[in-house]
Amino acid sequence: MEIMQTLHMNKGDGETSYAKNSKVQNKIISIAKPIVEEAVLQLLESKNVVPMESMGIADLGCSSGPNTLLLISEIMDVLHSKIGSSSSSTEFRVFLNDLFSNDFNTVFMSLPAFYNQLRDDYFHKRSLQGPSPNLFVSAVPGSFYGRLFPKKSLHLVHSSSSLHWLSQVPASLDSKASTALNKGKIYISKSSPQCVLDAYSLQFQNDFSLFLKSRAEEVVPGGRMVLSFMGRPTPDPTSEQSCYHWELMAHALMSMVLEGLVEEEKVDSFNAPYYAPCAEELNLEIQKQGSFIVDQLEAFEIGWDPDADQENDQTVASSGKRVAKTIRAVVESMIEAHFGNEIMDDLFRRYAELVSSHLSKSRTKYINLVTSLVRTA
Amino acid sequence: MEIMQTLHMNKGDGETSYAKNSKVQNKIISIAKPIVEEAVLQLLESKNVVPMESMGIADLGCSSGPNTLLLISEIMDVLHSKIGSSSSSTEFRVFLNDLFSNDFNTVFMSLPAFYNQLRDDYFHKRSLQGPSPNLFVSAVPGSFYGRLFPKKSLHLVHSSSSLHWLSQVPASLDSKASTALNKGKIYISKSSPQCVLDAYSLQFQNDFSLFLKSRAEEVVPGGRMVLSFMGRPTPDPTSEQSCYHWELMAHALMSMVLEGLVEEEKVDSFNAPYYAPCAEELNLEIQKQGSFIVDQLEAFEIGWDPDADQENDQTVASSGKRVAKTIRAVVESMIEAHFGNEIMDDLFRRYAELVSSHLSKSRTKYINLVTSLVRTA
Repeated sequence: MEIMQTLHMNKGDGETSYAKNSKVQNKIISIAKPIVEEAVLQLLESKNVVPMESMGIADLGCSSGPNTLLLISEIMDVLHSKIGSSSSSTEFRVFLNDLFSNDFNTVFMSLPAFYNQLRDDYFHKRSLQGPSPNLFVSAVPGSFYGRLFPKKSLHLVHSSSSLHWLSQVPASLDSKASTALNKGKIYISKSSPQCVLDAYSLQFQNDFSLFLKSRAEEVVPGGRMVLSFMGRPTPDPTSEQSCYHWELMAHALMSMVLEGLVEEEKVDSFNAPYYAPCAEELNLEIQKQGSFIVDQLEAFEIGWDPDADQENDQTVASSGKRVAKTIRAVVESMIEAHFGNEIMDDLFRRYAELVSSHLSKSRTKYINLVTSLVRTA
Repeated sequence: MEIMQTLHMNKGDGETSYAKNSKVQNKIISIAKPIVEEAVLQLLESKNVVPMESMGIADLGCSSGPNTLLLISEIMDVLHSKIGSSSSSTEFRVFLNDLFSNDFNTVFMSLPAFYNQLRDDYFHKRSLQGPSPNLFVSAVPGSFYGRLFPKKSLHLVHSSSSLHWLSQVPASLDSKASTALNKGKIYISKSSPQCVLDAYSLQFQNDFSLFLKSRAEEVVPGGRMVLSFMGRPTPDPTSEQSCYHWELMAHALMSMVLEGLVEEEKVDSFNAPYYAPCAEELNLEIQKQGSFIVDQLEAFEIGWDPDADQENDQTVASSGKRVAKTIRAVVESMIEAHFGNEIMDDLFRRYAELVSSHLSKSRTKYINLVTSLVRTA
């Protein structure tokens, strides 16, 4: 329950806010855009859901900021280019989901302008007499590792940059566990004992199967899900491509331990509620659970810093800062809850330097993603 | 659109917050409680909505604070006392509605504890194996003077202390109007010319009929609405029972004009987007619109200060302060948008004194309410 109440992207629209530091997540959404379009087209062609009087769409882990309403725009684009005004009687029920502590207030304040834009884009252009979009946007707070929606109420489920978050730190690695099993690290690392790898893998299996079971009750027959999240390109969970962001964060924290700024015990007792599965693990869980069938499963990689264009020293230093801001906007609420607010600026300054140094060595520069399109079995 | 984005109860849980100053609204909810219970029982007995696999409940103008989730508790109480565990398969879809600027974040943060309480109250007591309540709470931001929900999706609509807010200041009385028609006043007053009364009455008629028309599309046949809001006990809209809160606010503002602290033009160009109808007006609008039939319509009155118990001078002074805090929590966002933040403390201090003085004269000490139970025609 603790994570469910404390994990949230940085609120508001200030310097360290998620709203101002979510270009990577925007890139991830744009990579999955053709797959979302494909899913919507499949839905429109499916006999099960036509005539579509009402279409239920859920965005799980919607967060707040410029990315939150992108999915709605994308879907409206497809619908209006394919079916035009014949969709004007369909009611679109869009459910924005995130944890209880998400900044929904900021999302809601942006809705009036968003609605006006939609009207301009799709209705006034075609006909001054045209109806407003029959769009009903609501927020559904809660964990997607459990039921969120009524039975058979959703046609399309979307989740981007969210499912790599576990429902909890694996119990044996929790800060309340009696023995620190992952000393000096905060996620799976080359130095982690096998029990750490196993604990993370098991937590992922339990969480992801609960996710699938919950959605299976909520999605109509013929419904589709498009899921994009951090994955790893190899079966080995200790590979650099899987965990290097966390590895560098552990280095930053341990450098503060060495200087007496953070207690070592604090680092030893912290592990991230995160897991980046490989494609095989994902496929296996979907098969085991049995409610969904994988239509597509693709791996992508994007640069740590989407704004990087050259590789000179100055660029690398700016990249480090940008990457650190991106990561800070996502993980600060969680790290702050464990380590306290006072070390945050110092920690992310060190982290930015470590990222710059890492990027200058031309090693792992990519975030690895998996994107899957699944349909009901 | 302006009111839709600026009107909100004071946020958070500080000294001047709505959460800390909403006892009057709590009292209004408790007065209407038997009527809500009656509506739920009628729904359970209605053949149209049984077997009830899913029940849609909307609370329009839910605000934030301790009152927001009361409706859900009340309804769960009735359901569990009447139908007990046989309701365990019914899915309850509860939609919390308020304007875009409402503090939904605070509501959402209180949900995990609320869900735990519900489980304790209704499930663990009966059976340790019992299911969790099939309760799906979502937030639907937007104006209830327009469509908010999909067609035929609601069984029960509730609105408390909200429908006295108009969708806008009547255009002829708006701050952008060329002539100030209601000089020195901010709502209907004994000194207001007839055109002011007519403008308010027409705005109410337009708004309330749009409210009814919108709900008529959303409520299932046999559905019920329980609406409680400020009303007046007499047809005369200039009677003290109708408008004395606003009369005193105008006095407070004009006292600041006299001292040069507020420009007179500022007061002349401000009018409240508020209207307290009498029972006859309400009945007439419901009949004219035609989609609903009035089952019950009752008038209530409650003291300006529900905490007042004696009538000595000290109590009257405290009452004035409490009433001023209650009113401030509700109207500050709107008054601040027009007059600026810097005069707020002074204004509400003067207002508290005027209320105390008013209460000590033993005149109009009651807030007048109308509560109606209506069903689909």
